[in-house]
Amino acid sequence: MSADIGPDKGTEPTHGDSADDMLRAWRAGIDTYQEPVVYMRRDCAVCRSEGFTTQARIRLTAGSGSIVATLCVVDGPWLGHGVAGLSEAAWRALHPQPGQWITVSHAPVLDSLSHVRSKVYGHRLDAGAFRAVIGDIAAGRYSDLHLATFITACAGDHLDLDETVSLTQAMIDVGERLDWGRDMVVDKHCVGGLPGNRTTLLVVPIVAACGLTMPKTSSRAITSPAGTADTMEVLAPVDLDIGAMRRTVERTGACIVWGGSVRLSPADDVLIRVERPLDLDSEGQLVASVLSKKAAAGSTHVLIDLPVGPTAKVRSREAAQALGRRLVEVGRSIGLQVALRVTDGLQPVGRGIGPALEARDVLAVLRRQADAPDDLRQRALRLAGDILELGGAAPPGAGLRLATEVLADGRAWAKFAAICEAQGGLREVPVASHRHVVEAPSAGRVTSIDNRVLSRAAKLAGAPRAPAAGVDVHVRLGDIVRAGQPLFTLHAQAPGELAYAQQYVNARPPIFQISEAS
Amino acid sequence: MSADIGPDKGTEPTHGDSADDMLRAWRAGIDTYQEPVVYMRRDCAVCRSEGFTTQARIRLTAGSGSIVATLCVVDGPWLGHGVAGLSEAAWRALHPQPGQWITVSHAPVLDSLSHVRSKVYGHRLDAGAFRAVIGDIAAGRYSDLHLATFITACAGDHLDLDETVSLTQAMIDVGERLDWGRDMVVDKHCVGGLPGNRTTLLVVPIVAACGLTMPKTSSRAITSPAGTADTMEVLAPVDLDIGAMRRTVERTGACIVWGGSVRLSPADDVLIRVERPLDLDSEGQLVASVLSKKAAAGSTHVLIDLPVGPTAKVRSREAAQALGRRLVEVGRSIGLQVALRVTDGLQPVGRGIGPALEARDVLAVLRRQADAPDDLRQRALRLAGDILELGGAAPPGAGLRLATEVLADGRAWAKFAAICEAQGGLREVPVASHRHVVEAPSAGRVTSIDNRVLSRAAKLAGAPRAPAAGVDVHVRLGDIVRAGQPLFTLHAQAPGELAYAQQYVNARPPIFQISEAS
Repeated sequence: MSADIGPDKGTEPTHGDSADDMLRAWRAGIDTYQEPVVYMRRDCAVCRSEGFTTQARIRLTAGSGSIVATLCVVDGPWLGHGVAGLSEAAWRALHPQPGQWITVSHAPVLDSLSHVRSKVYGHRLDAGAFRAVIGDIAAGRYSDLHLATFITACAGDHLDLDETVSLTQAMIDVGERLDWGRDMVVDKHCVGGLPGNRTTLLVVPIVAACGLTMPKTSSRAITSPAGTADTMEVLAPVDLDIGAMRRTVERTGACIVWGGSVRLSPADDVLIRVERPLDLDSEGQLVASVLSKKAAAGSTHVLIDLPVGPTAKVRSREAAQALGRRLVEVGRSIGLQVALRVTDGLQPVGRGIGPALEARDVLAVLRRQADAPDDLRQRALRLAGDILELGGAAPPGAGLRLATEVLADGRAWAKFAAICEAQGGLREVPVASHRHVVEAPSAGRVTSIDNRVLSRAAKLAGAPRAPAAGVDVHVRLGDIVRAGQPLFTLHAQAPGELAYAQQYVNARPPIFQISEAS
Repeated sequence: MSADIGPDKGTEPTHGDSADDMLRAWRAGIDTYQEPVVYMRRDCAVCRSEGFTTQARIRLTAGSGSIVATLCVVDGPWLGHGVAGLSEAAWRALHPQPGQWITVSHAPVLDSLSHVRSKVYGHRLDAGAFRAVIGDIAAGRYSDLHLATFITACAGDHLDLDETVSLTQAMIDVGERLDWGRDMVVDKHCVGGLPGNRTTLLVVPIVAACGLTMPKTSSRAITSPAGTADTMEVLAPVDLDIGAMRRTVERTGACIVWGGSVRLSPADDVLIRVERPLDLDSEGQLVASVLSKKAAAGSTHVLIDLPVGPTAKVRSREAAQALGRRLVEVGRSIGLQVALRVTDGLQPVGRGIGPALEARDVLAVLRRQADAPDDLRQRALRLAGDILELGGAAPPGAGLRLATEVLADGRAWAKFAAICEAQGGLREVPVASHRHVVEAPSAGRVTSIDNRVLSRAAKLAGAPRAPAAGVDVHVRLGDIVRAGQPLFTLHAQAPGELAYAQQYVNARPPIFQISEAS
């Protein structure tokens, strides 16, 4: 079934000195997520002469391109002689011609790992150390294990202010930096942790409809069931390169694209791929990640939304203040004006959790549907009002009114449609094929909702990878429910995933606390 | 070239409900080090129905056995339909029959990861938390990324005394525990970081020749060019199961085996496999690793050798005292009597660094050769003397004299030969095929030696994987050398590795500081 792999016998390298370290590139079709992996036979000449062993870090050079990959040694018969099998990530990174000769050699010693070890042992790192580490990370020289170690060592409160500034600056310097040729470029960011808080898709068109420039780059989910980029992708393409992003902004004054595809802060994209399976997110890295993206995107004024609640990412007003202070201070050090809004994070925003369900909520608000979730609408209007004032499009105190007008008279919806069009065309929202309704076990008043468990259930159901998957929440804090009334619906695109999410929900204490109504 | 893989068309599962989650086991021959990995086609029924994606953690069940593996999704033509390709680690762990039906399902949610996250954020963990984490680790439920996070979160000084006790106890409880049926079982351990410090191979036969019981389990290298088990393996088999280990001890009073193969403290073996590529070793984990192995091996009295030097693992006398105190305190909590000896760690011990070169030094001492390294001999005699006193085989103050006698009259050599014989037979020491001599650039006195760089060079030359690889050191601190005199020789089993180590050495500041002799 695989007789076509590898080079023909007739074209094998001669085993002279010069060819011993050369193999022919073969696309093995193995999806190793984003870690580049190379598969080589244990008995190949270069493994024997270089003493390569599994897990070694190997440099692959094809023409003028070069990457570092993790080696998996193969004894099986499926890998041809004289062939280097590349995982999908390695193939994308090196992009050789099929069968092209590639040279393999030991990866250079990673001196920057000594800084990582130093951080693990609790020492401070200076700007040079962060530049070295981030440079190697952006160049793909760290294995996933190295990345996990760096992330963990910087997590908790292990980075002080100077270190966070150094990390942020290093992450900016290693990527591209956009210049929009104007003094005022506004932006917003939500620190997250609040399911369904998809205000960006409303704020951007409102603000842009009032004449401000807002080239928004968003991230995909790290630990949540949907990132803004995941939700926007349900409605329009987000994988724009810098040229396409620029054209969108020139035409509409705004965009909502995935930050990773424009290679702003490329080190951040690498770190995020490992943070995601670890379900780990730290203050220093959060600040560096957010602000490096904003600075690289050419923003000058940034509003940060900090939702606070016992099960949101920021759990107390004090924690929000500490994080906010850090964001403002690091922003100042790198030349960004940062404003804050601490918001209520007690319960999910809107009704949907997961890309398609959240996109549906956003469209309902933009289209002024009667059943649109009012909490999402109100949050977005307040944030948009803040930005209109921050950017000078409304006098102090008048931002909320202007934002409300622009949404009510359809200008925001028209602007959003224009942005989607410029990004490649507005799409239909997909609907999940498998659903399961969870009902109230007893009558009473809803007194608390566990955001974390809801998010986890949405992820187990397949979000964000399966865009239509997630959780649709039917009741809110303070609602009176009767026994058997639907509390939420699990949506999935595969029966196994629906069962898995259901099983998880069944094994937990109730997600919705219901007290006897008084 | 791979027409023989996978089941025949005629034996494919019927695609009824019951078979959708079943695949046939196929040994893919891919060496993923120790992480179990399963390769499944993206278009297979179970991937589609369960929504499996790359990096997902998957439970594989074959008969009554079950493991958790990391999924790599495959698009390539080399993997047959209806087949689950298993990496070597997965094949070893599940040991199915080739072609056996195996069931695949989502791995259970790992609740213990919440403890790991809690530790990352700087919180204390209680005994229950460590039990949960270590239980999951020993059962193979953590991915390498999870392990790296746990190791990093516990590194530095992040574990307090109670946490270290809890971790140690959890690591003991999860494995086997030997009982030798006697009140006194002695043991020793060296905290390491000092190349060539292979005293165990001398201490064990001396002590056993004096009638004490010393069933020694040793580790393979974590961050060094050779562990004691690696060096012993040059001379005799060390992969003994518990039965063979017991027979060796009954026959000779002692053994020197690899701890991992007898499954004492299995969680430690899992942690070490990730610590090694990270080149990371922490105090809490070091204490837990050492003492859990000793307790599980049934030891009652343990001597710990703490070499101190600026480039050894323990860099100052204060650090040695702090670590020693922690070892004694944790030992007391788990019922082990721990004695300490702080030794000089300024320079490598003996001449060889690397399994075979160190084994050669050990044999020279045991055989009382004139050219045997005297520093290795002296260190071993002092440690053996301490243990003889600790174990009551010599009165206080008389241990060193007894040890010296037993080595000098050949009883130690006879005992060592008997131990090797009982473990499977004494072996010839291999010699490296490729060498490179590094000479003194100028005349003068050797004033310092960088142990870390020497170790690194030995590792780059192939140690410990290639047993004959390493570094042979020809001069010692204080020696007067002339320009061009050999300082050390790099040994390798592959020309590429020799070149790699050479390149590394050339790129560093001099490893041996030579001052003009006064």
